[in-house]
Amino acid sequence: MSSTKVVVVGAGPVGSLAALYAAQRGYEVEIYELRNDLRDPSTVPLNFTKSINLALSVRGITAMQNAEPNTPEGERKLLDHVLAATIPMRGRMIHGRKANGELYEEAQDYDVHGRTIFAVDRGGLNKRLLDVLESMPNVKFFFNHKLTGADFRKRKAWFEHKDGSSESRPRETEIAFDFMIGADGAHSSVRYHMMKFTRLDYEQRYIDAQWCEFQIQPKEHFDAANPMSQFRISPNHLHIWPGKEFMFIAIPSEDGTFTCTLFAPGDKYAHLEANPANVPAFFDKYFPGVTDLISPAELVDSFQQNPHLPLITIKCKPHHFSSSVVLVGDAAHAMVPFYGQGMNAGLEDVQTLFSFLDRHAGGDRAAALDEYTAHRVPDAHSINDLALQNYVEMRASVLSPTYRLRKFLEESLSKYLPSLGWQTKYSRVSFSNERYSEVIARSDYQGKILMRVFGATVGIPLVAGGAMLWFRYRKVIETGVKGAVEWVVNTVGR
Amino acid sequence: MSSTKVVVVGAGPVGSLAALYAAQRGYEVEIYELRNDLRDPSTVPLNFTKSINLALSVRGITAMQNAEPNTPEGERKLLDHVLAATIPMRGRMIHGRKANGELYEEAQDYDVHGRTIFAVDRGGLNKRLLDVLESMPNVKFFFNHKLTGADFRKRKAWFEHKDGSSESRPRETEIAFDFMIGADGAHSSVRYHMMKFTRLDYEQRYIDAQWCEFQIQPKEHFDAANPMSQFRISPNHLHIWPGKEFMFIAIPSEDGTFTCTLFAPGDKYAHLEANPANVPAFFDKYFPGVTDLISPAELVDSFQQNPHLPLITIKCKPHHFSSSVVLVGDAAHAMVPFYGQGMNAGLEDVQTLFSFLDRHAGGDRAAALDEYTAHRVPDAHSINDLALQNYVEMRASVLSPTYRLRKFLEESLSKYLPSLGWQTKYSRVSFSNERYSEVIARSDYQGKILMRVFGATVGIPLVAGGAMLWFRYRKVIETGVKGAVEWVVNTVGR
Repeated sequence: MSSTKVVVVGAGPVGSLAALYAAQRGYEVEIYELRNDLRDPSTVPLNFTKSINLALSVRGITAMQNAEPNTPEGERKLLDHVLAATIPMRGRMIHGRKANGELYEEAQDYDVHGRTIFAVDRGGLNKRLLDVLESMPNVKFFFNHKLTGADFRKRKAWFEHKDGSSESRPRETEIAFDFMIGADGAHSSVRYHMMKFTRLDYEQRYIDAQWCEFQIQPKEHFDAANPMSQFRISPNHLHIWPGKEFMFIAIPSEDGTFTCTLFAPGDKYAHLEANPANVPAFFDKYFPGVTDLISPAELVDSFQQNPHLPLITIKCKPHHFSSSVVLVGDAAHAMVPFYGQGMNAGLEDVQTLFSFLDRHAGGDRAAALDEYTAHRVPDAHSINDLALQNYVEMRASVLSPTYRLRKFLEESLSKYLPSLGWQTKYSRVSFSNERYSEVIARSDYQGKILMRVFGATVGIPLVAGGAMLWFRYRKVIETGVKGAVEWVVNTVGR
Repeated sequence: MSSTKVVVVGAGPVGSLAALYAAQRGYEVEIYELRNDLRDPSTVPLNFTKSINLALSVRGITAMQNAEPNTPEGERKLLDHVLAATIPMRGRMIHGRKANGELYEEAQDYDVHGRTIFAVDRGGLNKRLLDVLESMPNVKFFFNHKLTGADFRKRKAWFEHKDGSSESRPRETEIAFDFMIGADGAHSSVRYHMMKFTRLDYEQRYIDAQWCEFQIQPKEHFDAANPMSQFRISPNHLHIWPGKEFMFIAIPSEDGTFTCTLFAPGDKYAHLEANPANVPAFFDKYFPGVTDLISPAELVDSFQQNPHLPLITIKCKPHHFSSSVVLVGDAAHAMVPFYGQGMNAGLEDVQTLFSFLDRHAGGDRAAALDEYTAHRVPDAHSINDLALQNYVEMRASVLSPTYRLRKFLEESLSKYLPSLGWQTKYSRVSFSNERYSEVIARSDYQGKILMRVFGATVGIPLVAGGAMLWFRYRKVIETGVKGAVEWVVNTVGR
């Protein structure tokens, strides 16, 4: 076992995974967490700000896979357990009302190849990671410990320990460390103290949207032999009621409920707060059909009892100081939740970080961290931007014909002309481990080509004749499109 | 005397002026300052990060004028004293070397009407403000007090008091207040604690430039009857050696010295740090003539002994929380020093803040602060942007013919056609109290008109014939220009 002491601040999913990566490399690992152990039955449920159901996708899965504990039986102690408790979501289900007043729902698959993302309970995933860590001899937990100071030159940190009795004056302890990993969230203390040592470019911004939670209950009567039948709407979709300026979404939970979220600008919230009785009418106007799933009384109740919370987006650079501290997860790049990538990006941070540390193993950690910052900052900034853009996509663009046309065209190219390597932006983000910064570059590039090819050559017949034409004259169009794309690719240059 | 307790954090020029405004309105004022009293002879000179000589201009002067203590004799106890210790600077002196190798200097006046800015010693100005405050019965000082926490709902704050003996454990005291003014600089603790109560959009960025101080000594032999004769170069200019990517400047001090600053990108600093013996050659190449004023040995010495410091630019919004706290000066909008407006903007904050508080006197402070933030944030952002842009102007544009032509044209319009209200951007910033945001708007508008008028009608003869033509055919051109400007103004619309 190495005598190098790695201190991880924050025992959420990202901090826990970082501890696991460190422990597997033989370091002496200590995890400090502000809150109580969430596996302790006396622990009040995690702060409400953490209760958005999470979407786990390829990046998060890959990062966990690479930390899979070795078992003689080849059993995947971490991933099998985590995945067993998820619900695959194969697309968005858009809800609306037709001109004739009829309700409709329209499924938009995420991926033309059938790949899915997974609805997961943050607490369950977190507990599993803690359980795996608990079994490792070189890992120690310190719950109810608050970071109060750090000297990143002398590698010392101070924590206040609150024991059970809330009246007692907290005790402060000083610890020494070799390397600190700050995984303590958007309002990171590690980052705050790191700012005193490095010249940190830092930006935080609150977007003009707040969120509040609601719930859709399971059916009272359902086929017990088929647990999926208890869901009141499709369990395999992320449901969206796009309201242009507002948005209501629902994500399935294993217990048959849906955790729902209302996103709306601050003035709309203020308006409804002034008269909560108007909430059901507001829903009927913008989110048709929801009052069939949640009773008006429940809507008003949840709106009044659940907190109305802000959304913050954070960028910073560098992500480290010297060889002594690095930020991962929300501490480095809190983002708005609209791409479902917050946790995935955080888990990917850990994998990326350790790939750089491994390259310099036994050697120069400062150089490894320099390289990590240089590599990771553009990706963190990119997914931050993508997440912001996706808010517009989810609440408005999903309804636009241009958006659907591009999605259709790109998916067709991806499916029928795989040799071109065409992928939608969503697929690149959610179903690949491609760097986020490259996703943006390639997607922009694809957009440019699409504009030229389809605008100039086949755009008009496709719009006019739609999918029928495509399938009828597939071979001819395929040949034409392939030729046109190749010509533009050669002209524009890769 | 009002029983309202105003706590000012930070006893620099901006905090002291805020305390003075508050004290004159009869509030009970307490000033908490991290450092020792700078008037105490045992105090080590102010932290080196504060030693850039400051340029005092109209905004700072106006703000102090409005806080002038009443004296029966009509003496200006504050301003007369402060101004007596300044040196007027009427323009830039650009230093360079001609193609034939000869050194030259070229004066560029700041203002066609002869108005000047004033070089001032930050410490002297600060001491005078503290002296004035000392004489007021409702003001108490608490030096060596560090803000460690604040609850802006309960209006309580905690300070650590370090007394002389550095070994003793600092004592923590809790105080109550009605209104806190945070004037504690770029790395403001007040702002940090305020962030926990309000949704603060916040951005800090380090620009790729560092700075280091040098000094030009007075002449050894000079005419004692004429103290101005001790300066080795003109005392009434801000001297600039524009090096395109680098810049060296010199600002006069009352004692006959010049405080000089080298601004250069980080990689240039790293390069010179690796081999400081190269500093004089670097100066000879980019800042011709400096080695005649500062010996090569002194240059190397200062470069090695004085710190190499970063430059930060900060924007945030809002500047306040509820009715309990407001940020002024660098705490709200630290800027790069290239417009000489940092302190002036901070002093103007105080005047603007109290104009809003006065409007709501005895009433709703929360409403006053809401209005202050709405009014002041765009101005703070504007001067931040202007300061960044001015770095390019000072180190490069001052040499460009286009820049000089616009300056000449605008100054001519300002001087000969005053009815048009034409002013250069620099004059609007430094010689007026116009809102910074309006300065940008008007300057953009003037630029648009100039482009149209001079590009299309008289630009070519002016460029060709230059100033001679102007003076010879002044009347004709004046009439033509006036007509053209009026026509464009009417076309473009105000």
